[in-house]
Amino acid sequence: MKRIGVLTSGGDAPGMNAAIRAVVRKAIYEGLEVVGIFHGYQGLIDGNMEVLNLGSVGDIIQRGGTKLYSARCPEFRTEEGQQKAIEQLKANGIEGLVIIGGDGSYRGSMTLTKNGFPCVGIPGTIDNDIPGTDYTLGFDTALNTVIDCIDKIRDTATSHDRTFIVEVMGRDAGDLALWAGLAGGAETIIIPEVKMNMEEVVERLKSGTSRGKKHSIIIVAEGVMSGSEFAAKLMEHANIETRVSVLGHIQRGGSPTGRDRVLASMFGARAVEVLIAGSGGRAVGIQNHQVIDYDMNEAFEKSEVFDQNMYQLSKELSI
Amino acid sequence: MKRIGVLTSGGDAPGMNAAIRAVVRKAIYEGLEVVGIFHGYQGLIDGNMEVLNLGSVGDIIQRGGTKLYSARCPEFRTEEGQQKAIEQLKANGIEGLVIIGGDGSYRGSMTLTKNGFPCVGIPGTIDNDIPGTDYTLGFDTALNTVIDCIDKIRDTATSHDRTFIVEVMGRDAGDLALWAGLAGGAETIIIPEVKMNMEEVVERLKSGTSRGKKHSIIIVAEGVMSGSEFAAKLMEHANIETRVSVLGHIQRGGSPTGRDRVLASMFGARAVEVLIAGSGGRAVGIQNHQVIDYDMNEAFEKSEVFDQNMYQLSKELSI
Amino acid sequence: MKRIGVLTSGGDAPGMNAAIRAVVRKAIYEGLEVVGIFHGYQGLIDGNMEVLNLGSVGDIIQRGGTKLYSARCPEFRTEEGQQKAIEQLKANGIEGLVIIGGDGSYRGSMTLTKNGFPCVGIPGTIDNDIPGTDYTLGFDTALNTVIDCIDKIRDTATSHDRTFIVEVMGRDAGDLALWAGLAGGAETIIIPEVKMNMEEVVERLKSGTSRGKKHSIIIVAEGVMSGSEFAAKLMEHANIETRVSVLGHIQRGGSPTGRDRVLASMFGARAVEVLIAGSGGRAVGIQNHQVIDYDMNEAFEKSEVFDQNMYQLSKELSI
Amino acid sequence: MKRIGVLTSGGDAPGMNAAIRAVVRKAIYEGLEVVGIFHGYQGLIDGNMEVLNLGSVGDIIQRGGTKLYSARCPEFRTEEGQQKAIEQLKANGIEGLVIIGGDGSYRGSMTLTKNGFPCVGIPGTIDNDIPGTDYTLGFDTALNTVIDCIDKIRDTATSHDRTFIVEVMGRDAGDLALWAGLAGGAETIIIPEVKMNMEEVVERLKSGTSRGKKHSIIIVAEGVMSGSEFAAKLMEHANIETRVSVLGHIQRGGSPTGRDRVLASMFGARAVEVLIAGSGGRAVGIQNHQVIDYDMNEAFEKSEVFDQNMYQLSKELSI
Repeated sequence: MKRIGVLTSGGDAPGMNAAIRAVVRKAIYEGLEVVGIFHGYQGLIDGNMEVLNLGSVGDIIQRGGTKLYSARCPEFRTEEGQQKAIEQLKANGIEGLVIIGGDGSYRGSMTLTKNGFPCVGIPGTIDNDIPGTDYTLGFDTALNTVIDCIDKIRDTATSHDRTFIVEVMGRDAGDLALWAGLAGGAETIIIPEVKMNMEEVVERLKSGTSRGKKHSIIIVAEGVMSGSEFAAKLMEHANIETRVSVLGHIQRGGSPTGRDRVLASMFGARAVEVLIAGSGGRAVGIQNHQVIDYDMNEAFEKSEVFDQNMYQLSKELSI
Repeated sequence: MKRIGVLTSGGDAPGMNAAIRAVVRKAIYEGLEVVGIFHGYQGLIDGNMEVLNLGSVGDIIQRGGTKLYSARCPEFRTEEGQQKAIEQLKANGIEGLVIIGGDGSYRGSMTLTKNGFPCVGIPGTIDNDIPGTDYTLGFDTALNTVIDCIDKIRDTATSHDRTFIVEVMGRDAGDLALWAGLAGGAETIIIPEVKMNMEEVVERLKSGTSRGKKHSIIIVAEGVMSGSEFAAKLMEHANIETRVSVLGHIQRGGSPTGRDRVLASMFGARAVEVLIAGSGGRAVGIQNHQVIDYDMNEAFEKSEVFDQNMYQLSKELSI
Repeated sequence: MKRIGVLTSGGDAPGMNAAIRAVVRKAIYEGLEVVGIFHGYQGLIDGNMEVLNLGSVGDIIQRGGTKLYSARCPEFRTEEGQQKAIEQLKANGIEGLVIIGGDGSYRGSMTLTKNGFPCVGIPGTIDNDIPGTDYTLGFDTALNTVIDCIDKIRDTATSHDRTFIVEVMGRDAGDLALWAGLAGGAETIIIPEVKMNMEEVVERLKSGTSRGKKHSIIIVAEGVMSGSEFAAKLMEHANIETRVSVLGHIQRGGSPTGRDRVLASMFGARAVEVLIAGSGGRAVGIQNHQVIDYDMNEAFEKSEVFDQNMYQLSKELSI
Repeated sequence: MKRIGVLTSGGDAPGMNAAIRAVVRKAIYEGLEVVGIFHGYQGLIDGNMEVLNLGSVGDIIQRGGTKLYSARCPEFRTEEGQQKAIEQLKANGIEGLVIIGGDGSYRGSMTLTKNGFPCVGIPGTIDNDIPGTDYTLGFDTALNTVIDCIDKIRDTATSHDRTFIVEVMGRDAGDLALWAGLAGGAETIIIPEVKMNMEEVVERLKSGTSRGKKHSIIIVAEGVMSGSEFAAKLMEHANIETRVSVLGHIQRGGSPTGRDRVLASMFGARAVEVLIAGSGGRAVGIQNHQVIDYDMNEAFEKSEVFDQNMYQLSKELSI
């Protein structure tokens, strides 16, 4: 292997730039050449790429977003699109690819691997919803962004004796809501993995009030329902007035935390090692405090384990 | 004057705690006793108060929210409520009051001043909408909270070539939107003081696109319309797809900036000086880089001057 | 077990308050009473303590430092001091203790356990140097504080083409220096676990310069030598001029990160569970992504494993 | 005027990039061409420069440091150096210059103005020590960096009942120390403008202790003496043990605050307007809440007014 490519795909996540940097530097350290492909698979199809050197990735370890840009690419889901991509890989002498993104981005890469261009995936998404890795890149940063917001909202909630509903990202996975709720001292956490029981929610709020608690924070993962819907339900069920805060896209941005930068560095280096070893169709991750690589199919098949203990803990500590 | 009271009223703002601290310490320095009244005018009516000493205000200069709590108080708008408040002031030997809040809070205090309990107002609101002072307490902190969010959103906007609409606080005053837009490098700023021209907005977006600009940030003050409404209008008028981020209550919280802490310290000390001088019905403020006090009526009558130059500058720099 | 105590000892670390909160809430959830002991072992000897309830630990999850204060206590190392402590435990009906601190604090607790007052340790130190746990409380926050500083210093280093030496905490353990160096993109990292080779350091700097690199960040753990000493050596060996920044005590403060708050919550709850189970002389920790408890002696005997791979990675990525 | 240059000189300050952006965009808005000169006056002598367009200053408003780099330039103080600079200006068709830096940088520009190349200065320094402007660019950001550090140190000071000495930047001007001390709630502030009275310092510390105060923060501007010297003196005079924290170069870096970005935008635009008006030898500034420009000589002659009221206030509030 002489020349590899790297691209970011799907929603951006803090740490993607640090991962790009690690891929480039590790590859150069190992004597490879690296091509940066812009705008995800679309850029691959269009041949929108350039060689990256040490200087190309200087001063980006701390930047949010992705220097290589990202995009959805419906064309790449067609056979024709994939064929164009393969031709570009050939034409540009790219022998392997590092794909930084979520599971949708992983899927796209499987075709390339099958066609003789080994791909390795780096899990880049704030949702922490990729099976096979304990953490995804960007999750730790998003967690800290969310608790920073909760801390601010608590100032107002406390000052005005109000109940706030904070809507956080998470379509199918409640990790961000659960961690942020536990770390933010939220009284109630609503996540997709646990069937919501409105009676219990109301009961907790009322029991808190009867103990003298005058303000409360409720975290709702967007996958369950929107903050406004939840507020309407609370009003309807129990005549409880609340304010709603929808954190939105700020959760995706910002300078990556120390942990995300370290993770990005380890993931990037491992991805290059896997390509050098001649393997494709693999994903890197961290399990039990160890960087690993594993069959990418596991990222699709295995369902993410929900941390029931942590959920229970959040209830016990918010009495 | 031997004993004064202090209360916070209306929406909370960063720096209120620092102002409480300054009032208490300056008063004690001058040999006065200070009573903290909880939950705004409601606490005054209910006699919900306690003496504050140096230790009571230790370690609060950096805290968001208000240690004295805040609340709306419809009862205080009735003659009966005001009578109760006056009786509490008498019963507790409170001879003067410092009111920290917005113009609504100022109005409430006028009755007390007229009844022989001189009140001095400290402008505490993130909206920067109180005539007579160049800055209100909390504005600088809210500004920095908003630009921190804009910086994060720009990471995502850039990575995905998207246009974002960011809705910020400001019912009648566009200062927060204007300052944050200028400081955040926003391409377009929509504020209540300037009649919106949708054709011009679309024109700017399109001209940016034609020059190669692929992402854009539009700031909308909530007083004009909601971010979603604006997004719908853009779609309807020009078929431009956007994402919306509503910053909401996080703008009210957080540790106050250096400037807000300094302002709070100066305002609190001056308010006590004014009370000692025997004056009531006055508000403190900062004008032309000088701490001042002025007739509270000016805070109601004079209309806030809009900074046309700054608005023009924001347009010139975002070409 | 009906009544337990909790104290913080040794250098403070971010997350100690979150751990106190978790101990108190979990204990109350389990039907126990909790006594907070002030100023570490000294407070235990002096009987300086009070019962903590749910409200006592409200609004502290996000605070740096320790609400229970900390102190060194030479008296507790004497038999007489220990006897006094035991009498206080008896007099106050305290049947078990949670000790939050470093290994020195753990040692002190062994005597109490042996005397029938089971103690459980929670690793609270920014140094990440306690054997048996992958992470200590406060390490993640300190890491982020350090990289925030490095990011700021890099602004100046880049603008002026300078080499900076950044001295970080770490007497015997280089974890903070290593993680921060990797996450901060430092060119060279000097830690106690690896014998420093000044020739190699100079070689790296010169090779960077010859490739066009004009600024450089060197991280030095205080346990190796001070930043100034290192600067003097660089000047002496190779006539290289540098600036020194000693981060100092800011590394110990600040609001804990999401991860440290989650860790604190898990550690606190587990410590209470261990006490309820009747065990003493144990420490809680996290290993392989799982909260564990283990024989406290392992925290003294086993030597902390140094992550050679991570050190190697930091070199490869900073070429 | 068709073509102007811009350079940054002296110590870097947050907001310099935002000022460069404003100069470039305003100039282009007005139909001028802008040349960015690298590494200050040295780059001018060496002809190290390039044309800047709208894209060149994209995404830099929020960055610390200076994209144009800065450097000291002894050669420019010689007549020969100045002659070379003038020849470069001629050769590159640059008719006027914007100089962003401190008063040393201003001085250098006077020769160019006298030789027919009008120069306008933008005050860029965290020291807030340039006569004629109420604030310099970078001061507000540095203030917030320092109070963030003080907040962290206070966590540790409080937890351990310790007195901390915090050394901040400021050779001749105590503004940063004074503002940060007031905003950080420091008990004692030592600045160059006020003759230090060690007896009074000790008296304040002891009187605090006697009132039950167990921790204390002392801010020392580096221009008076180093933190370590001050600690030694305190030990010698009164046997008071302290810890020292030297904040160092982190005070110069970081993303500029909202206020510094707004100031930078206004300063940059005004500087271009002054050049277009054909004036040289002028400096821009802010006075009484208004952007102004004034004879650059005033920046050398007039001595900066020290805010005695603010110093007095800091004493009254830290009783």
